[in-house]
Amino acid sequence: MSDFRHAVRVYVEDTDAGGIVYYANYLKYMERARTEYLRSLGYAKPALFDGLQFVVRDVSVRYLKPALLDDYLQITAILTAVSRVSFEMQQSIFCGKQLLARGAIKAACIAETTKRPARLPQEMFEALKSYIA
Amino acid sequence: MSDFRHAVRVYVEDTDAGGIVYYANYLKYMERARTEYLRSLGYAKPALFDGLQFVVRDVSVRYLKPALLDDYLQITAILTAVSRVSFEMQQSIFCGKQLLARGAIKAACIAETTKRPARLPQEMFEALKSYIA
Amino acid sequence: MSDFRHAVRVYVEDTDAGGIVYYANYLKYMERARTEYLRSLGYAKPALFDGLQFVVRDVSVRYLKPALLDDYLQITAILTAVSRVSFEMQQSIFCGKQLLARGAIKAACIAETTKRPARLPQEMFEALKSYIA
Amino acid sequence: MSDFRHAVRVYVEDTDAGGIVYYANYLKYMERARTEYLRSLGYAKPALFDGLQFVVRDVSVRYLKPALLDDYLQITAILTAVSRVSFEMQQSIFCGKQLLARGAIKAACIAETTKRPARLPQEMFEALKSYIA
Repeated sequence: MSDFRHAVRVYVEDTDAGGIVYYANYLKYMERARTEYLRSLGYAKPALFDGLQFVVRDVSVRYLKPALLDDYLQITAILTAVSRVSFEMQQSIFCGKQLLARGAIKAACIAETTKRPARLPQEMFEALKSYIA
Repeated sequence: MSDFRHAVRVYVEDTDAGGIVYYANYLKYMERARTEYLRSLGYAKPALFDGLQFVVRDVSVRYLKPALLDDYLQITAILTAVSRVSFEMQQSIFCGKQLLARGAIKAACIAETTKRPARLPQEMFEALKSYIA
Repeated sequence: MSDFRHAVRVYVEDTDAGGIVYYANYLKYMERARTEYLRSLGYAKPALFDGLQFVVRDVSVRYLKPALLDDYLQITAILTAVSRVSFEMQQSIFCGKQLLARGAIKAACIAETTKRPARLPQEMFEALKSYIA
Repeated sequence: MSDFRHAVRVYVEDTDAGGIVYYANYLKYMERARTEYLRSLGYAKPALFDGLQFVVRDVSVRYLKPALLDDYLQITAILTAVSRVSFEMQQSIFCGKQLLARGAIKAACIAETTKRPARLPQEMFEALKSYIA
């Protein structure tokens, strides 16, 4: 079970002419939180390691309330499923106690050179399974 | 019924260290295509107009095959639903005949100053309804 | 004289297919550091405040060595000049003790509505002058 | 001598909460134009080819007037210098006849694997020299 939270400040780069955070940029925040969550579990370079990489297969986001310039956000990451070749996480974006957005992703492991599906390292598979919420 | 397609070249800015287009950047391509589709229907400044703006409420993307540097992509946009305060579109990303990703979005109309829900202009509502696939 | 440093982690979003941080993204890091430096001086929302905004008039960057995925960077910000309508900063990007890039920017104050040149608030002008290196 | 121009539409992704194009994004536009210019000279994959890649060593931009959402821009690219290991270009960004920004870059050739300086292929060096303005 995870209470992992990663803090993110909203900078000008993240906003758009509508005065809010651009919708694609929430996916950046979500990935930062996933990266830091995996780092906290001991995977220091989770995006590219040992000839493997994770690619997102599915993402969905529901936007409830816009984040604004200078907001200080908290992004959660919870492991909800792990298989031999993929994992799933649920994530939420908060400003204070206000829930701004909720999302889910499924990431698959592929070989860096061939870009074809590959198995998670056995110890990573076992470890991630033990962290499922 | 729409056969709208918008062409996008993949530049270095779009790619990541995994050698593929970064997952959030497909949402940029999808929005460019929606913008050009609405422009083709006569809405020259569809993102911000008459004190209104559209914000995305829901997005989902399934990634089937990665786009690569210098790929020349075609992004479709099809209106699938329109209400007084929102519309929905389905979108696909192709490289040649290969389907790379599929997505769906729901966008809501809000007032630019208050950021609260607002009605689509009547003529826009009527027009968009007539374009539903 | 400023020893201000802002820490930045390199995430996948920042990198490109060349395996390094995309050259435009160093400007994002530099702006985050400027923002946090001004925040540390008491300007909580330095980008947009009191109907004023700062826009960059000039930027130059020399790239010495590429930043890589997962690098933990330190970005400095030093005020080098202040006028009634603008300020200048010099910035460096370090990974450990290694200097990766050096840059300089000049930012001008404009009115948010008209986008025309505007004076810095008097107390801000006085305060910034006192921080010149 | 080059009259090369590349057209770019400003989308929401490019803008910021100040209502203008974010300053780092002009560097994206400039790189798109350089890429298309090199493509027009016969270099179909100019960013990464034959184990080589180009990295920017120096960039400078002067911002004269902000680009706005939905603007249709023209970006020029002119070769001003070529050596065995680098080239330089000058670039301008126009909206209609209005000059919005001017920049200059120096890009160096490096080996993709070692990231160390490398020579341009001889025929590319000769060809680029013949295009110097």
